[in-house]
Amino acid sequence: MKVLIIGATGTVGAAVSAALEPRHQLLRAGKTSGELQVDITDDASVTALFERVGRVDAIVSTVGKMHFGPLTDMTAQQFNIGLQDKLLGQIRIALIGQHYLNVGGSMTLTSGIVAHEPIRNGANASSVNAALEGFVRGAAIELAQGARINAVSPTVLTESLAAYGSSFPGFESVPATRVAQAYVRSVEGAQTGRVYNVW
Amino acid sequence: MKVLIIGATGTVGAAVSAALEPRHQLLRAGKTSGELQVDITDDASVTALFERVGRVDAIVSTVGKMHFGPLTDMTAQQFNIGLQDKLLGQIRIALIGQHYLNVGGSMTLTSGIVAHEPIRNGANASSVNAALEGFVRGAAIELAQGARINAVSPTVLTESLAAYGSSFPGFESVPATRVAQAYVRSVEGAQTGRVYNVW
Repeated sequence: MKVLIIGATGTVGAAVSAALEPRHQLLRAGKTSGELQVDITDDASVTALFERVGRVDAIVSTVGKMHFGPLTDMTAQQFNIGLQDKLLGQIRIALIGQHYLNVGGSMTLTSGIVAHEPIRNGANASSVNAALEGFVRGAAIELAQGARINAVSPTVLTESLAAYGSSFPGFESVPATRVAQAYVRSVEGAQTGRVYNVW
Repeated sequence: MKVLIIGATGTVGAAVSAALEPRHQLLRAGKTSGELQVDITDDASVTALFERVGRVDAIVSTVGKMHFGPLTDMTAQQFNIGLQDKLLGQIRIALIGQHYLNVGGSMTLTSGIVAHEPIRNGANASSVNAALEGFVRGAAIELAQGARINAVSPTVLTESLAAYGSSFPGFESVPATRVAQAYVRSVEGAQTGRVYNVW
C-alpha cells in the first residue's frame, strides 16, 4: 500500500512508520521536518500536500497540539487552541484526504486516553480527544463505499514518562511499538468507525 | 436556588424552565429573546450576562448551532461552525460561569444522542456532542470544591419529529418534558462528571 503518515517524526509517528515500512510504501509528512511539510491548520497547505502525493491507500495522522492548564484559569481562546489544531487539524486531513483515497482506503486519526480518563489540566484534551472519536463514528457511516476511518487512543507512552509521567499518576504506560500495532490493525485490517484503545 | 437558563426559549429550554420554575428562581437568557440576551460566541457578552445576574446556584445551557451536511462535501470551515457555536459556546459559558457559581453550584450542558449513534449528515454533530461529554468528564475533576458539571444527551424530541424526524429513522423520540427531568436530576441532584442519556 501507499501510506501517507502525517506526524511521521513524532514518537508515535516514527513507531508507526517502523511498523509499516517493511510492507508498504511510506510518504512521511511533518510540520517542519520529513520529506513533506504540511500545516494542518490550513486548507491550502493540506490540499497542496495531497496534490503532491496523489492518491493513497492509507492516511495516518499522529499530529496535533492541545492546551494544557488549570480549568479555573482557562479561557475560551486557550481552549480553542486544541479545537483548531489537534481536532480540526486532523478532521481537515480527513475531510480533504477522503478525496485522495484509493477504493478501499483508510484513514487513521489519533485520539488519547484522556478522552475517557481525565487528568488535571486536561479539560481541553478530554474534549478534543472525545471529539475525534465522535467524528470517527460519524464519518465512518458516510465515507465513499469501502473507505474506512478509525482512531487510535494511546495512554501515556513509556517514552514520554520522563516528560509527562507526573501528569498521569498511576497510569500504566505503553511503549510506542505497542501503540503502533493499533495503527497497523487500522491500516491493514477491515474495521471502520472503531476507536482502538491502547490502554 | 437561583438558576440561569441559557436557551430558555428553545423547546428543551422551555421544558426545563417549566420543570424548575415551581421550586426555583429562574433567570432566562437567549440569543435574541428572553429577559436577558447573550451571544455565546463572545467572551465579553457572556461575561456581561454573568455580571448582570451575579452569583447563581445553577447554570443550564440548552443552546448551540452545528453544521449538518454530507461528509463528502464538508469543509473544515463548515465543521468549525459547530466547534465555535455549540461546542466552544457552551464551554465558554462553563469557563466563565464557574467563577459566578455559589458554593455547591452546578452547570449542566447539552450534548445529544448523535455523539454515539451517528446519523447521515451528522459528522459535525457526532464530534461536537462527544466533545461536550469529554469536556464534562475533564472539567468535573477540576472545578472548585463542591461545584458540579454534567451534560444531558437527548435523542430526537417528539416535538421535533415533524422537522427532523426523517434524519432519525427508527430512533424513538422523547417528549421535551422527559428530557427536562434529566436537567432536574443534574441541577437538584449531587452527581458530577455525568452524561445523562435520555434515550
